[in-house]
Amino acid sequence: MDKKLHPVMSVRVFNEQKCFGPGIAELLRCIDEHHSLRAAAKSMAMAYSKAWTIIKNSEKGLGISLVESSTGGKNGGGAVLTDEGRKILEAYEQYCKKLLEYGNSIFEESFKDFM
Amino acid sequence: MDKKLHPVMSVRVFNEQKCFGPGIAELLRCIDEHHSLRAAAKSMAMAYSKAWTIIKNSEKGLGISLVESSTGGKNGGGAVLTDEGRKILEAYEQYCKKLLEYGNSIFEESFKDFM
Repeated sequence: MDKKLHPVMSVRVFNEQKCFGPGIAELLRCIDEHHSLRAAAKSMAMAYSKAWTIIKNSEKGLGISLVESSTGGKNGGGAVLTDEGRKILEAYEQYCKKLLEYGNSIFEESFKDFM
Repeated sequence: MDKKLHPVMSVRVFNEQKCFGPGIAELLRCIDEHHSLRAAAKSMAMAYSKAWTIIKNSEKGLGISLVESSTGGKNGGGAVLTDEGRKILEAYEQYCKKLLEYGNSIFEESFKDFM
């Protein structure tokens, strides 16, 4: 663990309501890994119904579809990210990365008296 | 309320443990306004014991004193920020302001496909 004073940033994206943030981002990453909403929820120790609600609320807020059912295949169907789902996840991750880099670069200057 | 897609950022400061963030910052601002920990906690609808614990944990984490008792005066004593308490609150607020400015300035570029 980092023992030196350092910042931890968290970003949420809103319009009229919260529509994207660390939780839905992690869920989309897990769906992309497991190709299944049920397995993704399980890997996050989250109830399937909660995972479903998080996705539906985010989709409603953004007005886009994030996840779609994949039917057939040897596992008999599952879930995959839509193109837009992948695109907003990448946008969010790149945005957070830039913000973290900037935030780290100015941290010592701001908190030098407490380091 | 802002209806356009926009970011909301939150910053926490850690060393071995969390030692500063939005909660303690708001509490220090309220103490500075009310000159009393009890009144500050009340204004935030927070139990006095919780406010006390937040301050003590932050002081322990940072290794500095944030608040001191003020005795005497017409109100018979209260609480004020120490110089270091005021200094780290200002450092935190300036840091958050810079991060917000930067985060706002790059947001549209990152999320242009979803605006």
